[in-house]
Amino acid sequence: MRIIGISFLILILEIVMIEQIEITLPSFKRGYHLITDLIEEKLQRLPETGLVHILLQHTSAAISLNENADPSVRYDFETFMNKLVPDNDPMFIHIDEGGDDMPAHLKSSLIGASLTIPITCHRLNLGTWQGIYLCEFRNYGGRRKLVVTILS
Amino acid sequence: MRIIGISFLILILEIVMIEQIEITLPSFKRGYHLITDLIEEKLQRLPETGLVHILLQHTSAAISLNENADPSVRYDFETFMNKLVPDNDPMFIHIDEGGDDMPAHLKSSLIGASLTIPITCHRLNLGTWQGIYLCEFRNYGGRRKLVVTILS
Amino acid sequence: MRIIGISFLILILEIVMIEQIEITLPSFKRGYHLITDLIEEKLQRLPETGLVHILLQHTSAAISLNENADPSVRYDFETFMNKLVPDNDPMFIHIDEGGDDMPAHLKSSLIGASLTIPITCHRLNLGTWQGIYLCEFRNYGGRRKLVVTILS
Repeated sequence: MRIIGISFLILILEIVMIEQIEITLPSFKRGYHLITDLIEEKLQRLPETGLVHILLQHTSAAISLNENADPSVRYDFETFMNKLVPDNDPMFIHIDEGGDDMPAHLKSSLIGASLTIPITCHRLNLGTWQGIYLCEFRNYGGRRKLVVTILS
Repeated sequence: MRIIGISFLILILEIVMIEQIEITLPSFKRGYHLITDLIEEKLQRLPETGLVHILLQHTSAAISLNENADPSVRYDFETFMNKLVPDNDPMFIHIDEGGDDMPAHLKSSLIGASLTIPITCHRLNLGTWQGIYLCEFRNYGGRRKLVVTILS
Repeated sequence: MRIIGISFLILILEIVMIEQIEITLPSFKRGYHLITDLIEEKLQRLPETGLVHILLQHTSAAISLNENADPSVRYDFETFMNKLVPDNDPMFIHIDEGGDDMPAHLKSSLIGASLTIPITCHRLNLGTWQGIYLCEFRNYGGRRKLVVTILS
């Protein structure tokens, strides 16, 4: 019985656990912003292997993985997406909350409001050039909230 | 041994389990439809903390998180996405299944066919304004099937 | 005590575990390519029930679920996405890495660089017509790397 007891202990140490935290981001201006460092700071002591899921709890912003080095990429994102879904387009009927509101909803579903990222060797296992973007589509979006779930 | 036995029991109650159910949605007409309530009804007794993953098993529809209050948002989604990827565009060669078929495939990959949502305090932890959309891109899409996996 | 010991064993067999592997894909030419078989080959002995998460560790390619039968769908994807985000568009300022680079970054965030797929009865539980696409947006993208995490 003692031997069986010890083998249980070993198994339990390898078992998956779920943790959850909330992160309230600082207010960002309209555009694309690298928030990888900001998130990693809040995720101290990551497990050896696992998954992190991040939900942005908003419908007029998005989160995405993209190029983490050259700010001109983020600039071109803003230019392109504003041309794809123009503010104040007369085709929209949902206009009460401002000319940037309906375009923000559309961009949010096109880019997406959640990410899942593997954890390997206690770190977010992103590609060399991958960073986490907060995509702020409103002129005055305010502070955005993330729910982060860690499977470890 | 009795004490060790009890401590195992406590640990096991905190451990992650996987459950899976299938949901067959009613037939929806082309457009964007709130299905949050419909999904929550099927997910009774959610765990305290966890994740729900939803896969839509189709390539001509999508699921997305977006504004859950004003139907004009869903109306504008239909208008915008139909302008972005027009039916019967002569550039398409995949036309045997109708003029709405290839546009539906494209919209499906642009919006996405799966969602992961955190569970907190036994509920889907969506933002105040977030709801789950079924995005039906076909004129007659029929009943769509979801595979729902709950990590708890 | 012996009875309790046996009941622990049964519980532990149902418990979630995390495994991770890396897959380096062969080099694909620009376009949309079915890689379901290639991934399933590497995922031998899947658990009865679970989730597979796949991260593409790149910012100029994407992975997506879409139609797995008719190659004309993948052809139309290439045509449409190139019209949506044209190479060498003069609006872009991030041009040092070639005229296909900034469009590739944009397409990557529009389609997405990760997928989560349910496992049911030891198989990827995709819809009848769903396959996994590698979306190669660069003219010479080279070999792409996936991090695959299995919750089982």
